[in-house]
Amino acid sequence: MIYITRRERFNAAHRLFRHDFTDEQNLEVFGKCSNPNWHGHNYELFVTVKGNIDDNTGFLVNLKSLSKIIKQFIICKLDHKNINLEVDFMEGKFASTENLSVGIWNELEQQIMELGADLHCVKVVESENNFVEYFGA
Amino acid sequence: MIYITRRERFNAAHRLFRHDFTDEQNLEVFGKCSNPNWHGHNYELFVTVKGNIDDNTGFLVNLKSLSKIIKQFIICKLDHKNINLEVDFMEGKFASTENLSVGIWNELEQQIMELGADLHCVKVVESENNFVEYFGA
Amino acid sequence: MIYITRRERFNAAHRLFRHDFTDEQNLEVFGKCSNPNWHGHNYELFVTVKGNIDDNTGFLVNLKSLSKIIKQFIICKLDHKNINLEVDFMEGKFASTENLSVGIWNELEQQIMELGADLHCVKVVESENNFVEYFGA
Amino acid sequence: MIYITRRERFNAAHRLFRHDFTDEQNLEVFGKCSNPNWHGHNYELFVTVKGNIDDNTGFLVNLKSLSKIIKQFIICKLDHKNINLEVDFMEGKFASTENLSVGIWNELEQQIMELGADLHCVKVVESENNFVEYFGA
Amino acid sequence: MIYITRRERFNAAHRLFRHDFTDEQNLEVFGKCSNPNWHGHNYELFVTVKGNIDDNTGFLVNLKSLSKIIKQFIICKLDHKNINLEVDFMEGKFASTENLSVGIWNELEQQIMELGADLHCVKVVESENNFVEYFGA
Amino acid sequence: MIYITRRERFNAAHRLFRHDFTDEQNLEVFGKCSNPNWHGHNYELFVTVKGNIDDNTGFLVNLKSLSKIIKQFIICKLDHKNINLEVDFMEGKFASTENLSVGIWNELEQQIMELGADLHCVKVVESENNFVEYFGA
Repeated sequence: MIYITRRERFNAAHRLFRHDFTDEQNLEVFGKCSNPNWHGHNYELFVTVKGNIDDNTGFLVNLKSLSKIIKQFIICKLDHKNINLEVDFMEGKFASTENLSVGIWNELEQQIMELGADLHCVKVVESENNFVEYFGA
Repeated sequence: MIYITRRERFNAAHRLFRHDFTDEQNLEVFGKCSNPNWHGHNYELFVTVKGNIDDNTGFLVNLKSLSKIIKQFIICKLDHKNINLEVDFMEGKFASTENLSVGIWNELEQQIMELGADLHCVKVVESENNFVEYFGA
Repeated sequence: MIYITRRERFNAAHRLFRHDFTDEQNLEVFGKCSNPNWHGHNYELFVTVKGNIDDNTGFLVNLKSLSKIIKQFIICKLDHKNINLEVDFMEGKFASTENLSVGIWNELEQQIMELGADLHCVKVVESENNFVEYFGA
Repeated sequence: MIYITRRERFNAAHRLFRHDFTDEQNLEVFGKCSNPNWHGHNYELFVTVKGNIDDNTGFLVNLKSLSKIIKQFIICKLDHKNINLEVDFMEGKFASTENLSVGIWNELEQQIMELGADLHCVKVVESENNFVEYFGA
Repeated sequence: MIYITRRERFNAAHRLFRHDFTDEQNLEVFGKCSNPNWHGHNYELFVTVKGNIDDNTGFLVNLKSLSKIIKQFIICKLDHKNINLEVDFMEGKFASTENLSVGIWNELEQQIMELGADLHCVKVVESENNFVEYFGA
Repeated sequence: MIYITRRERFNAAHRLFRHDFTDEQNLEVFGKCSNPNWHGHNYELFVTVKGNIDDNTGFLVNLKSLSKIIKQFIICKLDHKNINLEVDFMEGKFASTENLSVGIWNELEQQIMELGADLHCVKVVESENNFVEYFGA
C-alpha cells in the first residue's frame, strides 16, 4: 500500500452565517467571518489516494489523470467562486471548511476508484494557521 | 540607513470589473476574476520602513508600534472585508492589487513618519504566484 | 469523524543537558545544543482535534475557542520563555522536543474535551528539518 | 509511542520511461517526463521514526545519528545523481517517486532498528504539488 | 512607477562543466555539480516588470498576458529539459544560474516592452539556499 | 552586474534590554523580549553579493566558497549561541536584529571582496513576520 498526494489550489469567497439568525446574531457567533459582504481565501486542497504500485507503470496512479479529475470535479466548481452561492455540492450547507472537506470527498470518492485507487484523505488548508482533514465516513 | 519589514495578513473578497462594462464584457476582459458573486484571497502585506538606528534603543522603530499602526490603519479596514464595497481608501477605484498597494502606501506614509522612519515599500502578495510592490510616487 | 488543526507559534530558549553530567560530558553527548548560555528556536505548534461536525454550527469546534485555549494553556507559558527554567509543566524534565510534545498533550487533553472534541495530535516543529508528533499514550 | 521526523534534501536527475517502449511510445504515456535528455528535481525526504522516549536521554533517537544514517545510506547515493543510471537500490526499477520511496524504506528499515527505533514513514516530495508516502509492506 | 512580479516554475536537468576540462578536472572545480550523468532542480522563476498603472484597466499589465509570455518564451523551452543540451538561448554557454538568468532576461526584455511595461528583474531560485537576480546590463 | 544570494541558518538565544534599566523598566520598554531568562529564534541569514560573471567559470562567485566564508566568519559564532554573551562582534551592543545585521555586514565585507565580489545586502529574518536588511553605510 502506497499513498500519493496531489495539491491543487482555488481562490474563493464565502461567509459563515445561519439563515435563521439576524446579521447581529451571526456577528455575535461567527464574528467577522459572518460579514454579509463576504470575504475570501486562497485555499489549498491536498488529495491523498492509496493503493498498490502497478508493476507495468511503476505508478500508483498517473498524477496527470489525478490532477485532471480534481480540476474537473472540484477546482472548476470552486475557483473564483462564491462557496455559499455557486457550488452545487455545497447547496444548503453551512460554508465551513469542515463541510467543504466532506463535500469534496463525496464528489471525488467514486472518480478516484475509477482511476484504480482509493481516496484516503481530503485536506483543505484555509490559511497558514488552519486546516481540516477528512478520511471518509 | 537600515530597512526593517513587518508582515501582516488579511483575508478579503474582491472582484475585478468596470461599472461601464456589462457582465459579459467584464468576463471577456477580466476572466473569472470578474465573477459578480466575488472571490477572495489570503493577502500578505509586507511594509518596509527605512531610517537610522536609534543609538538609545538599538532599534530603527519598535516593531510593536509598527505592527500596531499597520493593524489600525490597514488591516482592520481590509480583513474579512469586501475590497470593492467596504474599504474607504479604495472607494471609486478598480480593486486591482496595484491600486490596493498605492492605497495602502497613501494611508501609511504619514503614520510611519510620525514613528520616526520613512516608508520604503508596500508589497502586497495576492497568491504564491503574484505580488505587487510600490515604492512611492 | 473529522480532524481540524490549528497552528500557534512561540519563541523560546532552551538547553539540552543533564544535571548529573559536567559541562564537558554534556557537550560530548548533546553537542552545541548543551551550550550553558542557552540557544533558542521559533517553534511551531500544530494541535489537531477530532470529532463529529455539529449540525447546528457546521463546525467541529469553533477555531477561535481552540486558539484561545492553546494560547491560554500553552503559548503564554512558553512564548519568550526559557523552557528549562520557567515552564511549570516541564519542571524536572529534560527539555527535548519529545518531552515538550508530551507535556503539551497533557496540558491540553482535558481542555479540548471540554470544547466537545478529542485531542488527536500535538506536533512541535523545532526547525525546518525536525519535528515531533505525539498521539497520546 | 512518539514520532520524530527528520528532513534531508537531494537534487537528482531522472526520466520516466520503459525500455520496451520507443521514445514515441514513452512520450505518449509519460509525456515530457520521458525526455531522453533527462530532467530533475529538488527532492525533499522526510523520514519518520517511532518508539518510546528513552528516560536517560529524553530522546527517542539522537537526531544527529538519524541524520547521519539518512545521509550515509540515502543522500550520498541520490544527491547530484541520475536516479535511472547511478543508484544501486533503484537498479532495474522504473524511476517513479513511488518506487523511490519503497527503495528508500528498504535501505533504511534495518538501520533505524539498530538506532533503537522503528521506521514509520518515508515521504518523498518531488515538487510543491506532489508527494508520496510509504509506511512499509 | 509600480512593480508586479509573476512566479513560474520549471524542472530541468543540468551539469556544471567545461568542455576543455577532463571529468576529473571538472570534478575538482565544480564538485558533484559536474556529474556527467546530470542532476536537476525544481527551479522557480520570478519575473518583475515595472511601469505605470493604466487608468483604464487599473492594471500595470494583465497578469494573464505576462504569464502567457513567460510560458511561451521561457518555460516551454526549459521545463523537463536538459539545460546544457536542449535550450537554444543557452547554447554554447556554461549552464550556471547566473548565465541562465541573463539568458532569460535577453529572451523576455523585448516581449515585456510589447506588453507596455519594462522588465525590471529576473530572479532564478535554484534551491531554498541559492538564488540569482539580474536587473539588466 | 549580477546578484547572487546564499541562505544560511542559525539558532540563537538573546534578550532585548539595557544595562542601565531595571528589569521592570526593560519589561516596560521591550516587553516579553526583555525576559532575563532569555528567549531565542531560528534565524535565517541571506547574504547577497554582486559583481560580474567570470567568463572562465560562468560564475559570479563559487557558491561553495561563499557558503564556507559565511559559515566560518558568522554562523560558527552565532549558531547555538547567546547573542548577548558570546558573540565577539556584538560585544557592548544592544542585541537587536538591526545591530546584528550591521555587525554581520562588518564581518563579511572584506571577506567577500577577497572572493572577487562586493557585498550587496545582509538580510536577517528573525521570524516569519519580521526581517531586517542592511546595504552598507
